[in-house]
Amino acid sequence: MAIRKSKTPQSPTQRADQKRVDILKSAGKCFRKNGFHQTSMQEICTEVGLGPGAVYRYFTSKDAIIAAMAEDERRQARTMLSEFHDTDDLPQALSAITRAFADRYAAISDAGLMTEIYAEGLRNKRVGAVIKKAETEWVDGLADMLRTAQERGQIDAALNAQQAALLLTAMWDGIVIRQAYTQEVPEAMMNLFDDMLKRWLSTAAVSTKRVKPAPAPKPVIAAPEFDFAPEPEPAAEKTPTQAETDLRQMSLI
Amino acid sequence: MAIRKSKTPQSPTQRADQKRVDILKSAGKCFRKNGFHQTSMQEICTEVGLGPGAVYRYFTSKDAIIAAMAEDERRQARTMLSEFHDTDDLPQALSAITRAFADRYAAISDAGLMTEIYAEGLRNKRVGAVIKKAETEWVDGLADMLRTAQERGQIDAALNAQQAALLLTAMWDGIVIRQAYTQEVPEAMMNLFDDMLKRWLSTAAVSTKRVKPAPAPKPVIAAPEFDFAPEPEPAAEKTPTQAETDLRQMSLI
Repeated sequence: MAIRKSKTPQSPTQRADQKRVDILKSAGKCFRKNGFHQTSMQEICTEVGLGPGAVYRYFTSKDAIIAAMAEDERRQARTMLSEFHDTDDLPQALSAITRAFADRYAAISDAGLMTEIYAEGLRNKRVGAVIKKAETEWVDGLADMLRTAQERGQIDAALNAQQAALLLTAMWDGIVIRQAYTQEVPEAMMNLFDDMLKRWLSTAAVSTKRVKPAPAPKPVIAAPEFDFAPEPEPAAEKTPTQAETDLRQMSLI
Repeated sequence: MAIRKSKTPQSPTQRADQKRVDILKSAGKCFRKNGFHQTSMQEICTEVGLGPGAVYRYFTSKDAIIAAMAEDERRQARTMLSEFHDTDDLPQALSAITRAFADRYAAISDAGLMTEIYAEGLRNKRVGAVIKKAETEWVDGLADMLRTAQERGQIDAALNAQQAALLLTAMWDGIVIRQAYTQEVPEAMMNLFDDMLKRWLSTAAVSTKRVKPAPAPKPVIAAPEFDFAPEPEPAAEKTPTQAETDLRQMSLI
């Protein structure tokens, strides 16, 4: 009876929290092995050693499990971010964050799991919504950190903090995918990334003092090469140079 | 009879090539709609309007189709790269390549398809092998382009061209994932990327003249935050700071 009580989600005791974590761990194990779609709820139940009733009390579907994973992932990343919020050396903090991500995803299958979660979020509205929300919070937090560093004169004040936070996040995502294929990011690449950050964010402007780069010509030659694209879908939806695009729109992954 | 002849893969006539392209297009349409695993070969046959025999003459399995997509994708990207090989303004060329990628993946489902191909390549050895091979060629080509620019004094000669090519590729991959969620990359982010490239690759060194950045401390605080990771798998496989990691190992996605 006591055990039964601890399962009640209405009173989220530590034991209930632990059970939730156990389910997510077991599900992750199954997903990494066979992928989301080739894993059944039954297999997850078997892996965690609980009956369907117990598992469904926490997660009503596989989608709910995937969404919870995406959410937990970003929440933990944000916790990490907050640890660095008051740094007096932003490039150093960003470098540490990059390394923390690399360590976090060092197990090849974890980086793979994240890549699959991204892919799933594009088709699965529920997962996609969770990712978008979590991502907005993450990017906002990072942008805030950049702004603080700007106010303290640590990095270039002319930088658009929100866009820089988005670009940084995109870079980290790219490194995670790459890592998914290699199990680890070599130290040389990490150092290069640090170096890039220093140069990019530096208050000491380069010779070309933040002049807006000459608008790169539309790659008239290159674009047509991409003919693999199976019918570019409703081309009407594509508005290539909409400079006003709402920043919020980008706060997604 | 004439039609039959054109289907013979042994004599890759234009018509045979066209049929191959048609199958890939139809498969892409199905994949983007329902994902790889929820699409059957039968659905692809129906979509392209060919019988299983005709389709299997070109592709013996769904895996073969996905592998062909990954291969075509990178081949086309390399063709684009070659167009820019003799550029006398590398940052401008890189900017144009970034925009070409953005245009290429402007249809949300195409960026999603690529994200799913990445995820698939991690579990599926055949797809993974194709991606790795294609990627090695791509990164080598890009590194070569960077070296040429270095020789011509266009960009910082001290830069490790091979690692920079890897990092650039990771950045582009990250932007593609991001785009998968947004349908397009806003002009402001493109400009920021251009600006970052100029500063990073510039021959005019910043105040901190390429000094190796102080080795960022292992994020002792941050790393443990990531406890979502379902059992870090065989921890033995994780060798965090193996500085000697072969560069080739990274030429993967």
